[in-house]
Amino acid sequence: MKRTRPRIYFYSRLDLAAVWREALVAELGDNFDFIVGPHCDTPGDMDVGVMYSLPPDGLVEFCNLRAIVSLSAGINQFDRARMPLGVPLARSVDDSLAEHIVAYAKTAVYRYHRRFHRYEVASRESAWKYELPRLNRETAVGILGLGELGTAVADALVTDGFEVHGWSRTARELSNIQTYNGAAGLSQLVGAVDILINLLPLTAETRGILSSDLFTHFRPGAFLINMGRGDHLIEADLLTAIGQGRIEAATLDVMSVEPLPTDHPFWGHPGILITPHVAGILTPATAAPQVAENVRRAMRGEPLINQIDFDKGY
Amino acid sequence: MKRTRPRIYFYSRLDLAAVWREALVAELGDNFDFIVGPHCDTPGDMDVGVMYSLPPDGLVEFCNLRAIVSLSAGINQFDRARMPLGVPLARSVDDSLAEHIVAYAKTAVYRYHRRFHRYEVASRESAWKYELPRLNRETAVGILGLGELGTAVADALVTDGFEVHGWSRTARELSNIQTYNGAAGLSQLVGAVDILINLLPLTAETRGILSSDLFTHFRPGAFLINMGRGDHLIEADLLTAIGQGRIEAATLDVMSVEPLPTDHPFWGHPGILITPHVAGILTPATAAPQVAENVRRAMRGEPLINQIDFDKGY
Repeated sequence: MKRTRPRIYFYSRLDLAAVWREALVAELGDNFDFIVGPHCDTPGDMDVGVMYSLPPDGLVEFCNLRAIVSLSAGINQFDRARMPLGVPLARSVDDSLAEHIVAYAKTAVYRYHRRFHRYEVASRESAWKYELPRLNRETAVGILGLGELGTAVADALVTDGFEVHGWSRTARELSNIQTYNGAAGLSQLVGAVDILINLLPLTAETRGILSSDLFTHFRPGAFLINMGRGDHLIEADLLTAIGQGRIEAATLDVMSVEPLPTDHPFWGHPGILITPHVAGILTPATAAPQVAENVRRAMRGEPLINQIDFDKGY
Repeated sequence: MKRTRPRIYFYSRLDLAAVWREALVAELGDNFDFIVGPHCDTPGDMDVGVMYSLPPDGLVEFCNLRAIVSLSAGINQFDRARMPLGVPLARSVDDSLAEHIVAYAKTAVYRYHRRFHRYEVASRESAWKYELPRLNRETAVGILGLGELGTAVADALVTDGFEVHGWSRTARELSNIQTYNGAAGLSQLVGAVDILINLLPLTAETRGILSSDLFTHFRPGAFLINMGRGDHLIEADLLTAIGQGRIEAATLDVMSVEPLPTDHPFWGHPGILITPHVAGILTPATAAPQVAENVRRAMRGEPLINQIDFDKGY
C-alpha cells in the first residue's frame, strides 16, 4: 500500500520552523509529519526535505527522499556531492520577494542618506550634532546587478528621486538610470556614487568582487550595502577600507558563514550594521502554497514546480 | 543719504550661519554685512533679522529693524512681546520642504518597520536574532495632521504600499487613506496603527496632545515619530509609556528646548532616537533667493513676501 501521509524534514538556520509548520498546515491540513532538523532519528523515512541549505551532515543518509524544496530562489547553497543522487530539487519563487528586497534597500539607503546612523551614535553620546540634510537628488546610489531584483530596486529609488546608477556584466539599457558594464564600467560606477548596493548573483566571476581593488575607486566616505551573498565580500578588505575612511559604514545582510560567529570582528564594529539575512526572504504565508504543492507532487511522483535542471544549473 | 548696504543680523541654533552667508552672497553679492548672533555689539544698527527663533535676550534692543525673516514656515517661535513693535515678520516657504519631510518620515518608518533599530542593538551585542520581516502592507502608519506636509507623507507611504490612516481636527476625505477627526477619531486612529507620526501645527488645542491620555490607546509596542513641535509631547509621559512597553521606541526631531540639554533623560535612552531638528529644514541653496528678496524689499520699505498678518496669526 502506498503511503500518502508525507514526512517532511525541515531545516533552516534562517527561517522559523514553527511559522512554516503553521503555514503548511493551512495548505495540507494536519495530514503530514514535520521533523525539524538538523537532527533526525530516521533519515531513511523522510519523504521531502524543505530547507534553506543542507544540514551540517548533508543529506546522504536521507536515502528515500522524493524531493528537496529550497526555501530560496537561489540554489548556490546546495552541494550536490552531499545530497542523495537523483533526487529532484526545486527552488521557490515568491512574488513578495522583490517587495521585501526593495523595502530593505530603502531602509538601508535612507538611513545613510539622512544620517540616522550618525544620530544613533549621537543619541547615545548626548550630542546634538546638526548637519544640513541633503535632498534625495543629491545622493547617488549605485546598484551592482540589474536582474529582476536590481531593476526593482533601481526603479523604486528613481521614483523616490535619487540619482541611480546600475552595473551589469553585459550591457543593458534602462530608462532613467545610468548603466555601466564590464570591468572598466565597474570602477566608473563606483566612483560616481555615494551608496553602493550589491545585488549580484554569486558566480565564479563575482565571488570576492567587493574587495580592496573595488574599494579603491570608492568616493571617500561612501557606504556599502551587501544584499547579495556573503562570498561577494572579502571581509578583511572591508575592515581595512573602513579603517582608512574609504568606506564610512556598511550594512551587511549576508555573511560567508551564517549565523555570523559570535567572535567575528564585524560584531560590535562601529561602522558595520549586521542584519540576520532578512532582506529577501520567502514569506511563509505567500510561499507555502507552492511548497505544499511540491510536497503533493513529490508524493505522487510528478515533476516539481520550478524544478532545477542540474545540467543548466538553474 | 539713504544707506543701501544692508546689515543682516543672523541667529539660529539649528541652521548653519556659514552656509547661509554663502547662499546669500550668491544672491546679493558681497554687498551686505552679516553679523552672527546671539551677541551683537550694535543692535540699533541692524537692518534685517534673519533667524529661526528669537535670540535669548529678544529683539527689543534692535530698534531700527526694517524686517524679520523667519528661517521656517512656522512662526510659533516668535514671541511678539520680545520683538520691536511694528516690524514686519515674514515666514519662509521652500518647495523642497515637503521633499525633506517625506524623506525623513520614510527613514524613520522603514527603520522601525524593518526592525533596523533592533539590529543596531543586536550588532553591538554580537547577537544574530532572526525575525520574520513584514511586508509594507502589514504595517499600519497613522499621521496626525493632514495639511500640506501630512498629506505629502500620507501619499508617499500609500505609494510604498503601507496601510495609512490620517487624523485631522475637522473632517477630511482623502483617497487611499482612512481618515478620522475629532477627539473620538483620535483614539480610534491611534488604536489602529503600528507607527504614529505627528505632523500637527502647534496650537492651544494640540499642545501636549502626545500624552498618557493618548498613549493609553496605542497598540502595545507601537512606535512614535514626532516631527511636529517639541511642545506637542509631554516628555515624562513618553518615558512612562516606554517603561511600560506601551511604546517600544520613539524618534524625536523636535524638543521643547533645542538643542536638547545634555542632562536630559532622553539622551542615551535605549528607546529614544534624537535627531537635531533636521526633518524639515529650509534649504539655504533653494530658499536664499526668497530671503534675499525680502532683504531687498525691507531696504526699499516694501511689503515682504509671505509677510505675516498678525491679526490672523499666519
